[in-house]
Amino acid sequence: MKIALVQQNYHIGNFEYNTEKIIQGIQMAKEAGADLVVFSELCVCGYPPRDFLEFGDFISRCYDSLEKIKAFTAGIGVIVGSPAPNPDPNGKDLYNAAWFLHDHEVKAVVHKTCLPTYDIFDEDRYFEVGQDWRVIEFQGKRLAVTICEDIWNLGENPLYRACPMDHLMLQHPDLMINISASPFDYDHEEDRRAVVRQNVLKYKLPMYYCNAVGAQTEIIFDGGSVVYDAYGTCTHHMKIFEEDFQIIDTEIKYRPINKHTPVFTSASVLTPDQIIPYLTRRNNIREIHDALLLGIRDYFRKMGFQKAILGSSGGIDSAVTLALASRALGNEHVRAVAMPSGFSSSHSVDDATALSGKLNNPFDIIPIQPIFESFLSTLQPIFNDLPFSLAEENIQSRIRGNLLMAIANKFGYILLNTSNKSELSTGYGTLYGDMAGGLSVLGDLYKMQVYALAHFINQDEEIIPNSILTKAPSAELRPDQKDSDSLPVYDLLDKILYLYIERRKGPREIIAMGVDQALVERVLKLVNTSEYKRNQFCPIIRVSSKAFGVGRRMPIVGKYLS
Amino acid sequence: MKIALVQQNYHIGNFEYNTEKIIQGIQMAKEAGADLVVFSELCVCGYPPRDFLEFGDFISRCYDSLEKIKAFTAGIGVIVGSPAPNPDPNGKDLYNAAWFLHDHEVKAVVHKTCLPTYDIFDEDRYFEVGQDWRVIEFQGKRLAVTICEDIWNLGENPLYRACPMDHLMLQHPDLMINISASPFDYDHEEDRRAVVRQNVLKYKLPMYYCNAVGAQTEIIFDGGSVVYDAYGTCTHHMKIFEEDFQIIDTEIKYRPINKHTPVFTSASVLTPDQIIPYLTRRNNIREIHDALLLGIRDYFRKMGFQKAILGSSGGIDSAVTLALASRALGNEHVRAVAMPSGFSSSHSVDDATALSGKLNNPFDIIPIQPIFESFLSTLQPIFNDLPFSLAEENIQSRIRGNLLMAIANKFGYILLNTSNKSELSTGYGTLYGDMAGGLSVLGDLYKMQVYALAHFINQDEEIIPNSILTKAPSAELRPDQKDSDSLPVYDLLDKILYLYIERRKGPREIIAMGVDQALVERVLKLVNTSEYKRNQFCPIIRVSSKAFGVGRRMPIVGKYLS
Repeated sequence: MKIALVQQNYHIGNFEYNTEKIIQGIQMAKEAGADLVVFSELCVCGYPPRDFLEFGDFISRCYDSLEKIKAFTAGIGVIVGSPAPNPDPNGKDLYNAAWFLHDHEVKAVVHKTCLPTYDIFDEDRYFEVGQDWRVIEFQGKRLAVTICEDIWNLGENPLYRACPMDHLMLQHPDLMINISASPFDYDHEEDRRAVVRQNVLKYKLPMYYCNAVGAQTEIIFDGGSVVYDAYGTCTHHMKIFEEDFQIIDTEIKYRPINKHTPVFTSASVLTPDQIIPYLTRRNNIREIHDALLLGIRDYFRKMGFQKAILGSSGGIDSAVTLALASRALGNEHVRAVAMPSGFSSSHSVDDATALSGKLNNPFDIIPIQPIFESFLSTLQPIFNDLPFSLAEENIQSRIRGNLLMAIANKFGYILLNTSNKSELSTGYGTLYGDMAGGLSVLGDLYKMQVYALAHFINQDEEIIPNSILTKAPSAELRPDQKDSDSLPVYDLLDKILYLYIERRKGPREIIAMGVDQALVERVLKLVNTSEYKRNQFCPIIRVSSKAFGVGRRMPIVGKYLS
Repeated sequence: MKIALVQQNYHIGNFEYNTEKIIQGIQMAKEAGADLVVFSELCVCGYPPRDFLEFGDFISRCYDSLEKIKAFTAGIGVIVGSPAPNPDPNGKDLYNAAWFLHDHEVKAVVHKTCLPTYDIFDEDRYFEVGQDWRVIEFQGKRLAVTICEDIWNLGENPLYRACPMDHLMLQHPDLMINISASPFDYDHEEDRRAVVRQNVLKYKLPMYYCNAVGAQTEIIFDGGSVVYDAYGTCTHHMKIFEEDFQIIDTEIKYRPINKHTPVFTSASVLTPDQIIPYLTRRNNIREIHDALLLGIRDYFRKMGFQKAILGSSGGIDSAVTLALASRALGNEHVRAVAMPSGFSSSHSVDDATALSGKLNNPFDIIPIQPIFESFLSTLQPIFNDLPFSLAEENIQSRIRGNLLMAIANKFGYILLNTSNKSELSTGYGTLYGDMAGGLSVLGDLYKMQVYALAHFINQDEEIIPNSILTKAPSAELRPDQKDSDSLPVYDLLDKILYLYIERRKGPREIIAMGVDQALVERVLKLVNTSEYKRNQFCPIIRVSSKAFGVGRRMPIVGKYLS
């Protein structure tokens, strides 16, 4: 049997677009002589549809799409992802399902059993747990079809009570097919291939694994669909961060293309000293780079925008954001604006100018001193002679936010935010000022990772001026300000943040690893008392296993470690 | 047997505070001669603890608190809510549990079965489903203990597969106890009493129902704990929006205190013409008023702030927000700032002045024209001679946001946001401008409800000047602007919004109810294309069954109805 895997980039709720893409995929598969063509999870509506699943109208449009797709299934088996109704009055109204279509008919519907409900996932919110497992017979083969998380319930402490493949094995399948919408993070691709391989080794069957690709707001689906033979060898792997199509003949024995299948390396066993090297290792940084380009590109395309604007301070964060945006959208589509205040050093403007000279993108210099003075004189009757404080620092940052938004509104740009994860974690930023923006590019990268990414961007050529990489970070909102006046040095800070945020270690555990108690308490308090700021922050392109935003849900008025 | 119900206001993660409160409750119960004292769901850590439940440290502090509480259980049975471990390696690591403590020992742990995972709830994210049901024997009585949602699985289309009381009935209990953290909305109190009554009538047992009270950021727990006898009569009901304590002797036959137990009125069967009268009916508005006062008060108290600031435009939204904040925090703690621009009418400043005169709260007038001109001249090289547009409107709004935040930063205020739900739904507001703030007071009230609330506030005395109630709403950001230039009239708009947001009707259904097709399509498109704005909005005090924020989760780059 010839099986085609179609790895595509869908648009949530854009039924016409998704249906058209799926039909194109079917026709490509037909032309290539496929007997069966496999698409990814919930491809009909796009993943994750979130609360649109609560609208009867949205669900009936999924079924309308299935009808349209059915018309193209003469002589070919098609597996597509779509919600399916739960006919039992007990439980939730929907299943997350794989629909098997053939010769204009629905031949089978497979319900997802393991519903991820953690981090960015919410599937128990919408779907009932599948409890009925049947292989699909097609052209003399018995197919064990599962959906994404269904193959992840392995190990000593499984998250779910049921393991669908264990049940399906009782019906003697010939091969496994898994349709996924499995997102990228810099740990996850290795994990994913390790999990596919573990299934293959456990059940001694080949697996055809089809993943989605493309960014949905902050979540990056990286594709990387794979085929493993029954002996644990990866015989086919598809592109990452791009659409792809492959056709595989189940009867041909493929030579291994990769003898050294990656072995799952658990980042959870890192010692404190290993954390920064791990976070900044070259493989991670290269993948992060590609993920961020896809994230920027898809956000603009799916929102219907072409052009970005950002504040270019002469610092490392805005430099890296500008370089990435120029690569993602084209340098002519990214406008950089330097907005020096009276506290800005001359090298800041020089560095910003040099960077835009190198990238050849539109660049303006708008001094903010006159507006700042106008604020101060307007507020004089209220502030009187109180000393310069955080209030005056924030005024400057918010003037910049207002200027950038004004130009964005006037000419149709989206404002890119340039904050990094170390700042966002500790609340070291100004709401409505440097925290403004429609999309955060670096908000899931700790400062040390931003440096590593800058070096990666500069690997062949000095795009980001070296002076930006070497000077001490500063917000330049008061005379001679340095980040290190307010925050611990970044290699220490990032380590503590990683242990608390990604690894969810409590203060006692982090201290037991040898980190200074007062410092741990101070940092964790900063994180917990700045929830209210992050709550108003824009979507952050997610590249780690625990990004701020939809995947991390904290009380705002809580009083834990604060 | 004498049972004490203790209805208290907890603080998430503030273990010392919550434990102290619970111990005080036990001592009050002892002094009153109680045999058994009942607290609310997850009272030990506060509800909802959200992702703090993923921290081993947080969980062990729950257990530490239980140890402390156990020391006070000599001679009295105590039922408290706390997470409990799942000893089975399969499934999630925790249960949401009721702990029965007596004579310094844990005598029983009841696991919650029905885990709400919809709207604001996320319990499948953290907890395993309970599957073992046992009555607790205590002083010759058999107690059927359930947790909140466990008693809600009724009706023809139940949300869960298991109904814990059905299982417990096989063990012949004498009475039902339910510990809850059940939030307020203006439909929910009736529903809740109807559900308690349905359980009582189904199982023919009395029910002792103990709910939490207090606001946790945007979610209001209204208390209103109740006791029903086995015949469906409410014999005791506790205060709403306040802490309360009652002791009930199970052997005394109480006279009914309320012959007409509210019957569940399903708002889902309203015709379009009934919607506005329903939303603005007096009972709803009075409860909303009280809920908002509690929401404001608890937010400030739990964040450790005393003083609020807000922009007072002379319009109805800021007037109602100011009146409510003055009641909640004390008029001297609420600073109102009028910030007229060149487009502000003189009556706007007059109305704002009159309102603060009436409320006797601190009030300033800060004209923004000089700052606005400074922005325009700074931007002149970029804007050149392009016509006045949305960009210039938004600059003004963001200048106001910056001024308010500057004063807030300087003197330690929290900025209250004054947007209403009709504006937020349609994206009729400026990010970082009038959408700025730490807490939204009216963001879950449609404009027609804001008017009704203003009339309610004015019922005894004209607090909000009548001219504010009668003039046409305007943002005053360009000459002679009116809301009705951009939006449909509010009684029509609010109706469509309610059907789409609260009732989750699709466009075809709303049109079938007789609403104009073009209008429906325009309004739904406005809602769906402004997700990116609401995504950056502050917490909204929740009073409806579907508020923006944690309870409504929509894709941002989606393309459905947009």
